Amino acid sequence: MDWKSDIDAAAARIEGHVVRTPLLDVNGPGLHSPVQLKLEQMQHTGSFKARGAFNTLLGEPVPDAGLVAASGGNHGAAVAHAAHRLGHAAHIFVPEMAGASKIALIRATGAELTVVPGDYANALHLAQEYEARTGAKQIHAYDAPATVAGQGTCMREWEAQGLAADTVLIAVGGGGLIAGALAWLAGRRKVVAVEPETSCALHAALAAGEPTDVEVSGVAANALGARRIGSICLDLAQRHLGASVLVSDDAISSAQRTLWRNNRQLVEPAGATALAALMSGAYRPEAGETVAVLVCGGNIAPDPFPE
Amino acid sequence: MDWKSDIDAAAARIEGHVVRTPLLDVNGPGLHSPVQLKLEQMQHTGSFKARGAFNTLLGEPVPDAGLVAASGGNHGAAVAHAAHRLGHAAHIFVPEMAGASKIALIRATGAELTVVPGDYANALHLAQEYEARTGAKQIHAYDAPATVAGQGTCMREWEAQGLAADTVLIAVGGGGLIAGALAWLAGRRKVVAVEPETSCALHAALAAGEPTDVEVSGVAANALGARRIGSICLDLAQRHLGASVLVSDDAISSAQRTLWRNNRQLVEPAGATALAALMSGAYRPEAGETVAVLVCGGNIAPDPFPE
Repeated sequence: MDWKSDIDAAAARIEGHVVRTPLLDVNGPGLHSPVQLKLEQMQHTGSFKARGAFNTLLGEPVPDAGLVAASGGNHGAAVAHAAHRLGHAAHIFVPEMAGASKIALIRATGAELTVVPGDYANALHLAQEYEARTGAKQIHAYDAPATVAGQGTCMREWEAQGLAADTVLIAVGGGGLIAGALAWLAGRRKVVAVEPETSCALHAALAAGEPTDVEVSGVAANALGARRIGSICLDLAQRHLGASVLVSDDAISSAQRTLWRNNRQLVEPAGATALAALMSGAYRPEAGETVAVLVCGGNIAPDPFPE
Repeated sequence: MDWKSDIDAAAARIEGHVVRTPLLDVNGPGLHSPVQLKLEQMQHTGSFKARGAFNTLLGEPVPDAGLVAASGGNHGAAVAHAAHRLGHAAHIFVPEMAGASKIALIRATGAELTVVPGDYANALHLAQEYEARTGAKQIHAYDAPATVAGQGTCMREWEAQGLAADTVLIAVGGGGLIAGALAWLAGRRKVVAVEPETSCALHAALAAGEPTDVEVSGVAANALGARRIGSICLDLAQRHLGASVLVSDDAISSAQRTLWRNNRQLVEPAGATALAALMSGAYRPEAGETVAVLVCGGNIAPDPFPE
């Protein structure tokens, strides 16, 4: 694939439909300062997922039956939002573990919603059945080229905004965001994958040399709890990833607290996971290595202003 | 006064001690889009007040008795933070109406704290007694040249970041922030003062032609509830202010909700007050008039991650 062309095309396609999210240089405890944050949780529906959703809907034909997606919450909200804006029907399958806040967020877009007992994999199974039955178009949350190219626009945008760091830390669930970043950068900067100890599908796949099913749990599970890493992500990671590190739930909660206390940014656990690697020492930059952190999601529970 | 030189000097003095806060272009209901926000609630201690505090402490001698300030919360937190960073003692007098969150925020800096029954004016009275008794240096929350010059760096910074708007909307309490903006702009752009209907010391003073005492109440009172406008602000407003508008508490709460729901920015009522003027129609731009909004404070109650 020519990822650079695909990501350039995605950026042109989604311009005006997504937010150009701001940067913030921060100092603070546990950081060898300063560290640049990209505040992608300010994206529409509170995560980077809107990029992939708009790229897919604007770049591919949509059948009359509309769209279907399975989602731990953020992808579903993004697909529902993009569908609504572009005038398509959407049916979202969301696992119970998404939690009341994210379920309400999706419902507020006007999408049809089915809440599925269990985790993301259960919801994906039902979404695939729905796709086969109705002819609706499935938008995969992370393992589809148009999704990955859409998420890749985040790193493209950041470089255009003047990213000046040797290394970028990115949280990983199913791997769509980091795949987009790896595809765009193609080794030009070091990319560090950060996963919760309790949901680490990429880490496990890299160790095994192939996709491996993992158990998922913990504070970030409704955003990062993919049981199996995407194949696009794994392929790119095997070629370009700089490091893969794990963080504890306590480290995630501590970083989440720091983002509020120091920077008045209220984010969900997944949104603080990459920063947690730096603050906890799970990733230790070398002397002189400059570091940047992608803040990827803000859909915290409980929602301070529920729909 | 040569405000431009004073604000240039303030900017040089406080560089590295304050956050260069980011911008965000937003669209949404009630806005003739896009509107540029400056997210100054990401400043240290959650409001623009850190600018004036650092400018005063770095530009003027500090006695051994340290600092004293009266504050509805945000100024006190800023003075306490700046004092702590620069190694000075600080005693903050805070009215009960500041609320538990802001009182805890000040306490966490290590400053001495006296909670005073009543409102800001009561706290100011005790702070002045303390100043006379101990020789501590008083930092006025809004009506001192070094405070105003410090707050003026916010607008200077915004212009350096590429502010492209005919008109800037700014919330007003005692008037330090808008005084700094008026001093910096000196009529080069239109500045609109936005006050709650329930705390409108500037509006009343402009009507009367002189400072007038007003009653203060409402959702933003612990940040914007000054009983009397600062004389520096009134003088600048009489010369340079473009418009003075009032907003209801409901409009403020609605704008606060919108900043969370659309942009994942959780701010206190005062921080949403300027946006409320645009969303509610209290300020209606003319055809072709481009507008920007200063988001000034994020110390919401209850605090989502209390100290």
